[in-house]
Amino acid sequence: MRIMRAEQFGLKREVEYGTPEQNESALRIVEDVKAEGDAALLRYTERHDGMRLTAAELRVTQEEIAAAYDRVDAAFLTAIREAAVNIRRFHEKQLRNSWMDLQPDGTMLGQIMRPLKRVGVYVPGGKAAYPSSVLMNVIPAQVAGVPEIVMVTPPATGGKAGIDPYILVAAAEAGVQEMYRVGGAQAIAALAYGTESIAPVDKICGPGNIYVALAKRAVFGAVDIDSIAGPSEIVVLADEHADASYIAADLLSQAEHDEMASAVLVTPSEPLAEAVAAEVERQLATLPRQDIARQSIDAYGAVLLVNDLLAGIDVVNQLAPEHLEVLTADPMSLLGHIENAGAIFLGPYSSEPVGDYFAGPNHIIPTNGTARFSSPVNVDDFLKKSSLIYYSKQALMESGDKIMTLARHEGLEGHARAIEIRLEKEGR
Amino acid sequence: MRIMRAEQFGLKREVEYGTPEQNESALRIVEDVKAEGDAALLRYTERHDGMRLTAAELRVTQEEIAAAYDRVDAAFLTAIREAAVNIRRFHEKQLRNSWMDLQPDGTMLGQIMRPLKRVGVYVPGGKAAYPSSVLMNVIPAQVAGVPEIVMVTPPATGGKAGIDPYILVAAAEAGVQEMYRVGGAQAIAALAYGTESIAPVDKICGPGNIYVALAKRAVFGAVDIDSIAGPSEIVVLADEHADASYIAADLLSQAEHDEMASAVLVTPSEPLAEAVAAEVERQLATLPRQDIARQSIDAYGAVLLVNDLLAGIDVVNQLAPEHLEVLTADPMSLLGHIENAGAIFLGPYSSEPVGDYFAGPNHIIPTNGTARFSSPVNVDDFLKKSSLIYYSKQALMESGDKIMTLARHEGLEGHARAIEIRLEKEGR
Repeated sequence: MRIMRAEQFGLKREVEYGTPEQNESALRIVEDVKAEGDAALLRYTERHDGMRLTAAELRVTQEEIAAAYDRVDAAFLTAIREAAVNIRRFHEKQLRNSWMDLQPDGTMLGQIMRPLKRVGVYVPGGKAAYPSSVLMNVIPAQVAGVPEIVMVTPPATGGKAGIDPYILVAAAEAGVQEMYRVGGAQAIAALAYGTESIAPVDKICGPGNIYVALAKRAVFGAVDIDSIAGPSEIVVLADEHADASYIAADLLSQAEHDEMASAVLVTPSEPLAEAVAAEVERQLATLPRQDIARQSIDAYGAVLLVNDLLAGIDVVNQLAPEHLEVLTADPMSLLGHIENAGAIFLGPYSSEPVGDYFAGPNHIIPTNGTARFSSPVNVDDFLKKSSLIYYSKQALMESGDKIMTLARHEGLEGHARAIEIRLEKEGR
Repeated sequence: MRIMRAEQFGLKREVEYGTPEQNESALRIVEDVKAEGDAALLRYTERHDGMRLTAAELRVTQEEIAAAYDRVDAAFLTAIREAAVNIRRFHEKQLRNSWMDLQPDGTMLGQIMRPLKRVGVYVPGGKAAYPSSVLMNVIPAQVAGVPEIVMVTPPATGGKAGIDPYILVAAAEAGVQEMYRVGGAQAIAALAYGTESIAPVDKICGPGNIYVALAKRAVFGAVDIDSIAGPSEIVVLADEHADASYIAADLLSQAEHDEMASAVLVTPSEPLAEAVAAEVERQLATLPRQDIARQSIDAYGAVLLVNDLLAGIDVVNQLAPEHLEVLTADPMSLLGHIENAGAIFLGPYSSEPVGDYFAGPNHIIPTNGTARFSSPVNVDDFLKKSSLIYYSKQALMESGDKIMTLARHEGLEGHARAIEIRLEKEGR
């Protein structure tokens, strides 16, 4: 693992947004499903997933879900249930009440918080079908109070025909009542516009392949979508008190995700830098996904030397990483200085996988520097706010002239007259 | 104004997203400013705004702002100051603290709320230069705690050379310290990527022409952007107790915005329907912007008859209007049923212009049915949340096995080992 001065490092990853051909293909699927409904949905499912289904077979049955429970092992079930409890607890703390501001003249202003009515969660097929991501998408929506949460997933998620039972169990544990065996751009179109079998939703979330991402972008506006995730990142900020083997293990846990993942250590300690670089090599040698991790470490990994921890914080704030671990003698003392990081893990026991799977905070976190302005998935993503304005007669009589002054300045006489007609009729 | 049964009405407006030529032109400007900085910024300012400037002249000076105060009338200044106080008060009530959840085993989890560091507000030129919109974009950012708020506006906003003094005063009153005389796609690019004269921002908000909208879409990802506003809408839900002249005036205040605006009355009362239709004609006759309002009313206006108020609420929820007024005998009793509306105005004194200019809630509100899933501009739009995870040794020892179970199920051995190495070293 290369060691360099922080000033020499620039993290630049060109993220793939699809070729024009892929985009055209996704758009055509979306248009066809929008126009033809189930007929197109079933046609594309046969073409892309090799599965010939009838409309009546799209929905996953209660029997299948029950059968899935028989196929998952007990330790997994115990673990995912406890994770779900933790995730629910953390997200419940984010809930906010609607509020009203009552003023002495009788005016009432407020914000009304309401859940979206119907949300669709996409779960990809193949090896990217992660039960933990099902929880991380579904539970915040559920805590927000979304009454209808629907999951779609390709008819073969487990690498063979049939949906991975672990996905079905995770969804059932999270409380999803409505699941369909459809995937790809056709599933996104069905969620956005509805078909005979699948009612349209207000928001679509969850990761997918490039066609899914392009289809989501195409339907945005008709429905809301979540942000499109880039490759994963970790930055570890550490001083000489940290255990090099912990840091190396955490860097590798990120690097094993994919070849474009980035794992970076920032430290003022040269001995630690050397020790971590050596540990990474040592641990890499026995890692099952070592090919992936090796490419990631070589291309986007680095140990960055800084003069002191505050200089290290500057580097962190510039990188704005998805995950930040702080392994220093007194990590809490640095917290106030950290401006840009999606999730902050403090101290030696807060290894990133603790957050990926179990602690409660969401593991869907802004990547690619976007933690500068965006946030991990949270309950607010599934709420909408309406402004409430109840103006009293007294308030209107007192402020009417000022409102008319502002409206007339902007050349909007009709606005002024809407006030004036009331002032005239109700007598000032 | 046409009167029809609600079932017969379908509000469909095809919103213009620009031609391929416009998009190409906006993209070229963005690329040039990104590559060349000030040189391209000044070149496009000369080409599109007819104004030859040096880099040193881009920034609006303190003297110009002081001079602007001499040119605005006293009634305007009084009114906008009071509006600013109201807007600030309403938005301050939205503020949230960072929070921590302390658990008995020593674990601490939380959400840290932080303002974005730097926000750019675009203010269009020409007749669309609305001082009220300056307040509505700037104040929420300021209340969120954004330390740097920068305004950009074309070098001629007042219809002649020079920036409209009302815009400068509104910005100064809202607390903007940094203003530049640049507009168009070139201004958006400068905000997104920075030039020698203008430092880059984290988020760009504010309306603009089609090139501005296309440039915002192009830079999204490098920075955050606000949503792109469609034509404005009002739905009035009223019963026989409402004053037809008030409703007509409020419908026209919306219709005068532009030819694609939509103004709709929903009512179970046929006499009210007839009276409002007649009042609209009567009031239209003397409205300065009657040409615009007439086109809007003819194309997108309607009086919709429903069986009762609850049926009316169904129509409202389907339309998901930007603005909803409820003028019924007991408007508060209907509030709980209203699911989709960006801003809800209750009772006869809550005329929409009250909210447009003065009451405090934001006037930048989701259009085109997107109130189903999005919200008026608010303080959260200028905050980012970071998750905080401080796991205790005890917590890791107790939950480590479950975390490893979940990680290994997903085939991520590196994740499991990051936990395992700690369990082994620290002894279970």
